[in-house]
Amino acid sequence: MQFLIRLFGILLAITVLGITIAIVKIASYNQSEDSVHLAAKQNYLESLEKLPKTAEHPNIVVILLDDLGYGDVGAYGSQSIRTPHIDSLAAGGMRFSHYYSPSSVCSPSRAAMMTGRYPPRTGLGHVVFPEEHFMTSLQKLTDANTAIPTDEIMLSEVLRAAGYNTGMVGKWHMGDSEPSLPNNFGFDHYYGALYSNDMKPFALYRDEKIEEPAELDQTRLNALYTREVVDFVERQNSETPFFLYYAHNFPHVPLFSSAEQAGKSDAGLYGDVVEDVDHSIGALLQALERKGFIDNTLIIFTSDNGPWFQGNPGFTRGRKTQTWEGGQRVPFIAQWPNNIPAGTENSTPISGIDLLPTVLALLDLPLPADRVIDGVNISGPLMSEEPLDERPLYYFSRTGEDLHAVRDNRFKYHRQRGVMAIEFNDNIISLLPKGPWLFDLSLDPQESYDVSNRYPEAKDHLRQQFEEKSQEMEVNQRGWLPN
Amino acid sequence: MQFLIRLFGILLAITVLGITIAIVKIASYNQSEDSVHLAAKQNYLESLEKLPKTAEHPNIVVILLDDLGYGDVGAYGSQSIRTPHIDSLAAGGMRFSHYYSPSSVCSPSRAAMMTGRYPPRTGLGHVVFPEEHFMTSLQKLTDANTAIPTDEIMLSEVLRAAGYNTGMVGKWHMGDSEPSLPNNFGFDHYYGALYSNDMKPFALYRDEKIEEPAELDQTRLNALYTREVVDFVERQNSETPFFLYYAHNFPHVPLFSSAEQAGKSDAGLYGDVVEDVDHSIGALLQALERKGFIDNTLIIFTSDNGPWFQGNPGFTRGRKTQTWEGGQRVPFIAQWPNNIPAGTENSTPISGIDLLPTVLALLDLPLPADRVIDGVNISGPLMSEEPLDERPLYYFSRTGEDLHAVRDNRFKYHRQRGVMAIEFNDNIISLLPKGPWLFDLSLDPQESYDVSNRYPEAKDHLRQQFEEKSQEMEVNQRGWLPN
Repeated sequence: MQFLIRLFGILLAITVLGITIAIVKIASYNQSEDSVHLAAKQNYLESLEKLPKTAEHPNIVVILLDDLGYGDVGAYGSQSIRTPHIDSLAAGGMRFSHYYSPSSVCSPSRAAMMTGRYPPRTGLGHVVFPEEHFMTSLQKLTDANTAIPTDEIMLSEVLRAAGYNTGMVGKWHMGDSEPSLPNNFGFDHYYGALYSNDMKPFALYRDEKIEEPAELDQTRLNALYTREVVDFVERQNSETPFFLYYAHNFPHVPLFSSAEQAGKSDAGLYGDVVEDVDHSIGALLQALERKGFIDNTLIIFTSDNGPWFQGNPGFTRGRKTQTWEGGQRVPFIAQWPNNIPAGTENSTPISGIDLLPTVLALLDLPLPADRVIDGVNISGPLMSEEPLDERPLYYFSRTGEDLHAVRDNRFKYHRQRGVMAIEFNDNIISLLPKGPWLFDLSLDPQESYDVSNRYPEAKDHLRQQFEEKSQEMEVNQRGWLPN
Repeated sequence: MQFLIRLFGILLAITVLGITIAIVKIASYNQSEDSVHLAAKQNYLESLEKLPKTAEHPNIVVILLDDLGYGDVGAYGSQSIRTPHIDSLAAGGMRFSHYYSPSSVCSPSRAAMMTGRYPPRTGLGHVVFPEEHFMTSLQKLTDANTAIPTDEIMLSEVLRAAGYNTGMVGKWHMGDSEPSLPNNFGFDHYYGALYSNDMKPFALYRDEKIEEPAELDQTRLNALYTREVVDFVERQNSETPFFLYYAHNFPHVPLFSSAEQAGKSDAGLYGDVVEDVDHSIGALLQALERKGFIDNTLIIFTSDNGPWFQGNPGFTRGRKTQTWEGGQRVPFIAQWPNNIPAGTENSTPISGIDLLPTVLALLDLPLPADRVIDGVNISGPLMSEEPLDERPLYYFSRTGEDLHAVRDNRFKYHRQRGVMAIEFNDNIISLLPKGPWLFDLSLDPQESYDVSNRYPEAKDHLRQQFEEKSQEMEVNQRGWLPN
């Protein structure tokens, strides 16, 4: 019995410790708006001039899938899911083999992509939940943000200020009430779900009002989204450029395919759902063709993080929620005829945080001056196959609390913090090692071998960058710059 | 605060529940010897006739690595670990692409391979620990076995009874005291460690006596083992066939390379260690050549389970301890010149439990009649590329308590039980789905897509086999047959 008591005591202590750490750390996430930066944001947006639609000011379409893995589309090697329309984007554009979603989970990935800043900078380093969810209460109790702070500047706001028509269809997941809705962040038109399709109540909004009430029959979801993106394109004219952000809820669970597609894919229901989404993308591309927009439209296709329980992470280790490569390395395809060379592949490491600075550079718009933009302009590798200056890319934990890894063009320094798992699968307590490891991603994308002993200098160099970034994030997490 | 109290309560309840289940389930593992089957074992062994060394009675060498992954050797696609000697076995023999270790962890895998029976049958469905280890006390307290029951019949005992000289070098891990030592189970000669190299005290035994006391400097381990396997071969003659079981402790952690190899592998210390082991295998092959034995020796190379924290699981999901493919699908190479076609690959699903029935069939020895032997004779695919009759292969949880999966030639029905993980990595409680899933391994070795909706009949068929086997294991776990 002595051993049982000891074991029980250990588990109890771990439980208490875990909760304490959780509370303290979530509490440190209270990063609310700052009137100085709200004003700076206002001034910045007002300073932007309206751009006419010309060859230099293309339409921009960003297609973001939810939990789609690296290996889930034909263009990235899938043998069992047929995605001819997504593949056509790769054939007509550039496919990146080392693209990273900015986070391994939903809200922070989206916040970072839309702002060009690492997840913790945005005040939304963690996932948010519906108003009535138990986690929202816990987050409020601990003073953590339950929506993105309004002083953040999103790509949609910049483009709207620069004269673009802006529309969003799909999953928002950066707050589910005023003043944190899509229409508050630069979208003229919004249709979609405010969060993930496994969260309740699951309804579809048109702008701020519910149009399809909960509980929506999700077998209809893809058709509804398709109708909306096609309608949005149909409403556009040739004078004003537009920005369409199509953030599909699938293949996030629960999965629902259309009746027509059901049972057709060799990859089961998951494959049916991805093939449905591919058909939707086909309809969108057709609408762009029909309206004569396709040649002057930059289309981006990507995913918010790696695959969760199902889905294929390609040749990578790990899945959604993890800073192993499989949690963040996902497909990224960019098509812009005559500007991006067709049918090319590029192995430059890039990230979702590069979207905003790249688009702003293409449009010759200034970056905001009062805050750090972590991403860089990747139009070199994108449009002229020019190499990008080597820079570190950082991986943050799924709660945004901790830095977990940094990579350069070859190596990844990976250090998880306080890793421990109690698995009731087999009633086993596992103490998992937490690094630090050095992986040679050029030879070992699966992070199988720690090569610290062979490349001590590379390790020292990355460790130093890791520690400096950790410190910087402690001192000035939001990345505010002095006037 | 209400939420915190509720959360705390939930965690506490889970803890208590988990411990209770653990105790009850471990207790069900008390499967001790039975005098009837001890006597049957004695009678069976005494009935076997001594075999002379002829072309029909080859020497047998089984090389078992510890925690080596599917992708960790050149013959299985490694780009960064050089294993010319292991690769030479594949070039001179047959490489299986769908071999399964009988368990995802150490002791049960070894017990099953040596007896031809699924891990729970052997009374050693779980890992055992050194005498002084806290887990051993817990196992004793709950009446669980801390060693393999002596009524089990091992390949070494059968071969010794049939006149083979028998020797073992390396890791035993089926009990660390009398009457459960290698010499008690048919090995004339033993040199090695009684358990894993991360367990203490780590000493090397010659037969029942410590020769290299704890704590052994493990940078010497590979050289000591190499000396022993070469010495064993040197001592053999051409009249008596021999069986050598070389169960290396590496690349199980902690990793130590020889001084000469340190820093040479592109796969870091892990690679250095595997390359050291490859050199050891090279020395063994050279000794077999030198003595003129190589043409009449069946050499098997394999691993006890998938890779743990480091190591490469190839194109599979999961790692050691898991019933995902990566936990059990490992390399298996068999060389026997003029008997096994050289340089061939075979995709028949086979398992470590097939070793004993196959060797006994090759030698025309009868199987014991008082117990179920779960493995089958695979000499068809091995020696004549004849297809094997399709049969189900079962995957048991790492504690042996639960059946987790069954596969046929194409599909895998995978159902984990009570899966739940509390990860203190990011202070998150995860409720993981536990299936049941149907995977099409022919298209999807990574178990990415549940194809239940597409192949309901295949699922029903496998589910039925799964349930029948579960029931059978409940009723007659040890697989005793009536007289």
